[in-house]
Amino acid sequence: MKLPALSDIQQAHQRIRTFIHRTPVMTSRQINSLLGAEIFFKCENFQKVGAFKFRGATNAVLQIEPQEKEKGVITHSSGNHAAALALAARSAGVKAYVVMPSNAPAVKKNAVKGYGAEITFCEPTQAAREKTTAEIMEKTGATLIHPYDNFNVICGQGTAAIELLEEVSELNIVIAPVGGGGLLSGTSTAVKGLKPGIKVFGAEPRNADDAYKSFTTGRIHPSVSPKTIADGLLTSLSELTFAIIRKNVDNIFTVSEESIIESMRLIWERMKIIAEPSAAVPLAVIMENMGIFRGKRAGIIISGGNVELSRLPFREPS
Amino acid sequence: MKLPALSDIQQAHQRIRTFIHRTPVMTSRQINSLLGAEIFFKCENFQKVGAFKFRGATNAVLQIEPQEKEKGVITHSSGNHAAALALAARSAGVKAYVVMPSNAPAVKKNAVKGYGAEITFCEPTQAAREKTTAEIMEKTGATLIHPYDNFNVICGQGTAAIELLEEVSELNIVIAPVGGGGLLSGTSTAVKGLKPGIKVFGAEPRNADDAYKSFTTGRIHPSVSPKTIADGLLTSLSELTFAIIRKNVDNIFTVSEESIIESMRLIWERMKIIAEPSAAVPLAVIMENMGIFRGKRAGIIISGGNVELSRLPFREPS
Repeated sequence: MKLPALSDIQQAHQRIRTFIHRTPVMTSRQINSLLGAEIFFKCENFQKVGAFKFRGATNAVLQIEPQEKEKGVITHSSGNHAAALALAARSAGVKAYVVMPSNAPAVKKNAVKGYGAEITFCEPTQAAREKTTAEIMEKTGATLIHPYDNFNVICGQGTAAIELLEEVSELNIVIAPVGGGGLLSGTSTAVKGLKPGIKVFGAEPRNADDAYKSFTTGRIHPSVSPKTIADGLLTSLSELTFAIIRKNVDNIFTVSEESIIESMRLIWERMKIIAEPSAAVPLAVIMENMGIFRGKRAGIIISGGNVELSRLPFREPS
Repeated sequence: MKLPALSDIQQAHQRIRTFIHRTPVMTSRQINSLLGAEIFFKCENFQKVGAFKFRGATNAVLQIEPQEKEKGVITHSSGNHAAALALAARSAGVKAYVVMPSNAPAVKKNAVKGYGAEITFCEPTQAAREKTTAEIMEKTGATLIHPYDNFNVICGQGTAAIELLEEVSELNIVIAPVGGGGLLSGTSTAVKGLKPGIKVFGAEPRNADDAYKSFTTGRIHPSVSPKTIADGLLTSLSELTFAIIRKNVDNIFTVSEESIIESMRLIWERMKIIAEPSAAVPLAVIMENMGIFRGKRAGIIISGGNVELSRLPFREPS
């Protein structure tokens, strides 16, 4: 199994850089003073489609063989990767098929539809997603672009960390959320390649702690009916992402649902930006472990900003 | 009555620039394509205290006479100006007294308290605010820094438009929300001073249309029990702001509550930033008048980002 190297991520960055937004790194003196750390937020909520996923999808689509392009690309995803693949494919003139769980937030369904992808809904289980995807591939010959179990996708995701380290010096720690592990794999490969002294942590909801269990036991634990507000972190590690994470990641922290909501609220109120629940998990790790982070310079990937506002819910005050 | 000139605003900018954030100008291709215009959002929601008000308050506090400083400053405000004055005063080592309506959002009350101001609550009417303020001034000798009926405050507010025009060329239109008229006065003075060809529009909730009525009839209409979600736009014009607006503003548009909410939703969903209802009023003007803005380059002041998330309300999905 070939693991990506720093050079793969740097090449991905060259390949995609004219297609993606170079997102800002933001800071908040209020949050820093509240938590006693210097925190640098790499704002992938401002990325195209509202999530880092556009980096990986773009890198993957740009490397499809010409003869495969006319058969299209396909993926299954709870949302952000689907939107990302749909937009990346449309830009490249490639047809996109997307298999989505029926309970995905409407904002994510609409985004995928808006980018012109053909959607098939399925039950919200990993097994159903994979089966439905296989059926469509059989019929169409479309190339699977897996949301995270894909070398090129992982390399694309790692490019956010490259930009973070270009912009912020002397980081002690970088934290990324972990669901299937694509972002954490790319991030940890980039960070350890560039600055081996920086610690890399994964951040995971305690109610979906399969990566934590896998990391601590040394074998992959599947994600079994996770119940978390962080709807982007429901999936399980793959052999590839697990291997990369074991090699490069220093620790995985889990956090409570309450901390995730409190963290999200802190980001919205103090920074005036919209971070989706999954994106708030790294800051929740700092909030639950202030002793570890005190006085440190920590980089955080704000992974996305796609939330269903009517579920918050978002109404006129009475 | 001396009206501010462009040079007053430029001097204010020099005076305050090391104290304020230079906020970013953001764009959204999605919003542009939806509305058929090129819109440039000057993001004062990222300003200190989360609103443009910090510009005016800072400019005013920096010009208080030394012998007045020890008696403190005082204001009445529905919130953002109060927080702004509290922080500006604290930075200058000056005591701040704040009179707030009892129904102000908790997030705004807490901000003012957090910056160390002494708060007195009063009934949510302009008369009650003014009476309570006068009583405290009598007792303490504090200098009144009115939220908008103040030359130096108006000059400070105009500095956001200076930065907008420095950054974006060839604007056809600039739109600012109008409550008491401080922002619109400063903005219109700056814009007409720098580029007389740019149209300047005020944006007001139809349910609080006193500025619109004043502008169209030529005499000040007071704001009588306005009922709008745009809680920063409840106040009436003063003689000073009315004179500036009559001189410099080309038109005032009013919009429905539904449009304000839809505009706010668009900003949150597409731009991933938090704009408070008052800040969403200018975009609502474009949404309600697409014919006028089609093909135009319009600058908008996103005036602030202070919202009570629990009133949205903001809960864990069930």
